[in-house]
Amino acid sequence: MAVGLGLDVGGTKVLGCALDARGTVAAEVRVPSPKTQDGAVDALVACVRELLHELGPGSGEVTGIGLGLPGLVDEDGVLHETANMHGVEGLSVRASLASRLEEVRAGAGLSGSAPWRLAADNDGACAAAGELAFGAARGCSDAVVVTLGTGIGGGIIANGRMLRGARRFAAEIGHMVVDVHGPPCGCGRIGCWEQFASGTGLAHLARERCAEGGGARLCTLAGGGPEAVRGEHVVTAAREGDPDALAVIEAFGRYLATGLANLAEILDPARIILGGGLVQAGDLLLGPGLATYAATSRRGSGARSVPVVIAELGERAGAYGAAALGLDLVP
Amino acid sequence: MAVGLGLDVGGTKVLGCALDARGTVAAEVRVPSPKTQDGAVDALVACVRELLHELGPGSGEVTGIGLGLPGLVDEDGVLHETANMHGVEGLSVRASLASRLEEVRAGAGLSGSAPWRLAADNDGACAAAGELAFGAARGCSDAVVVTLGTGIGGGIIANGRMLRGARRFAAEIGHMVVDVHGPPCGCGRIGCWEQFASGTGLAHLARERCAEGGGARLCTLAGGGPEAVRGEHVVTAAREGDPDALAVIEAFGRYLATGLANLAEILDPARIILGGGLVQAGDLLLGPGLATYAATSRRGSGARSVPVVIAELGERAGAYGAAALGLDLVP
Repeated sequence: MAVGLGLDVGGTKVLGCALDARGTVAAEVRVPSPKTQDGAVDALVACVRELLHELGPGSGEVTGIGLGLPGLVDEDGVLHETANMHGVEGLSVRASLASRLEEVRAGAGLSGSAPWRLAADNDGACAAAGELAFGAARGCSDAVVVTLGTGIGGGIIANGRMLRGARRFAAEIGHMVVDVHGPPCGCGRIGCWEQFASGTGLAHLARERCAEGGGARLCTLAGGGPEAVRGEHVVTAAREGDPDALAVIEAFGRYLATGLANLAEILDPARIILGGGLVQAGDLLLGPGLATYAATSRRGSGARSVPVVIAELGERAGAYGAAALGLDLVP
Repeated sequence: MAVGLGLDVGGTKVLGCALDARGTVAAEVRVPSPKTQDGAVDALVACVRELLHELGPGSGEVTGIGLGLPGLVDEDGVLHETANMHGVEGLSVRASLASRLEEVRAGAGLSGSAPWRLAADNDGACAAAGELAFGAARGCSDAVVVTLGTGIGGGIIANGRMLRGARRFAAEIGHMVVDVHGPPCGCGRIGCWEQFASGTGLAHLARERCAEGGGARLCTLAGGGPEAVRGEHVVTAAREGDPDALAVIEAFGRYLATGLANLAEILDPARIILGGGLVQAGDLLLGPGLATYAATSRRGSGARSVPVVIAELGERAGAYGAAALGLDLVP
């Protein structure tokens, strides 16, 4: 059975995997995240080499590679808008990788085999492709995957296909403005969803709480002033029952619900799938927002409601989805 | 050449037309808007009868009918969420029309001809289908049509097809929240886009201006207090150079730009197409918003910008699009 390699370039690591069309994983590797364009090429090549080494004789079944990248990949395979990884901005994925991958193939004795398919897409799109091929979006002709991490990423499936838009820049759902009076965002606008309903958003809302005179426990946990408070301190304090942290999570939930309801209104997906690092905090963090979503939006409950569910593939969604794109499983 | 009948049910009239796949119009009729479910069926049947009468011997070339309805049409052809036309809520379009249309066909001597295709969709979706088949979205595989009227409607084209969503309830773009501190919307949420960037929104922003002590000219034109001010008074006063009206239009423009930029980020359409009654006010009303969009959004200018253009079909977009759906021109 054909095997695809999927590589997901995240802020702390590159996760690589080799899997077949059934989603059976044959190999998995991790290397540190790159800081530069050259570093990115080296890291991707190292990942591929290690995966082929792990596959051993199975290497011959590899038919394609997919790359999940921390930015938007245009039609020429050039990387843009790499918010949290400026060093790799402008990487020309296809051009830089082609000859290096040929060396790797030669080293593995695969020079004679059919050329590999090479797909590259935004990490949010890859997470959506992963959930569509192997996870919570299986069988959905319309779905949205929302990845809640430092920011908010995502991928949209419409009419059974990835919705990439006219320039492959679609699904920047974190940059949907939900509060025109909100804080500035790195994208240049004001009050983007990811300024509220992400890890960055939790920290922002915590600092607001501190500015109102609360947040003593949050500052203690952060070991500094309000500006030291991060999302994980809010979660830790909330777990202890700290009322300020619980109030911050309530506010986070109102914004989470607002964005989810907006996506339901615009896209009417069969389901909205929540993934990303923040999902690990579970019901403590997501419960209030999901309750608000159900109670306040037209699509939150009733016969035509849009259910919100948790992603099935966890941190591997991007790598699995990249492999699915490499295997051409997702149109 | 096959002919489609398109009927667009608006707040003041039902506009019906007969046209072929090239967009050549063979007949056009208008009847008053219905107030009830029975009235809607009667009005639609009357329209069809008049169109066939106008077509005369050409009636035999009709292959289908499309209906543009002021709400969301589910898979069973039942009408929901008829915000401004409560009387027709729950209309079971297909079930109510089938036998009545058979009578009309018999009356026109068409009983022996092939059954007509019957398509029914939201009026915003029909406007998008019209612009896709015959207007400003021709040749676009991804586009968004935004209709600015009393509220905000719209239709989305993705991967060359109408994006209808899992329950056919997609593209409710007017109910995207852009200001969580905004006024309540009829949909039950707070700060929906259509509370700002529509005719209703203009009136709301004008009342805010009055509450701040301005708006004398607006009240004079309205012949009453701030609550009497409507969108057209703002446009009239702005045309006179009234500073309060111009400030209201500036605020309107900031919200218009916010929603357009959100759609650009989420959908990356080849273009965004502005239609609906408000477009008739031209640059006076739309200019400030389009300038703000260009200046403040990542997709507002530059190499990967999403252009915003004016619809080509004017008030006929919905009827033409309905006919296109009747002709099965738009997937």
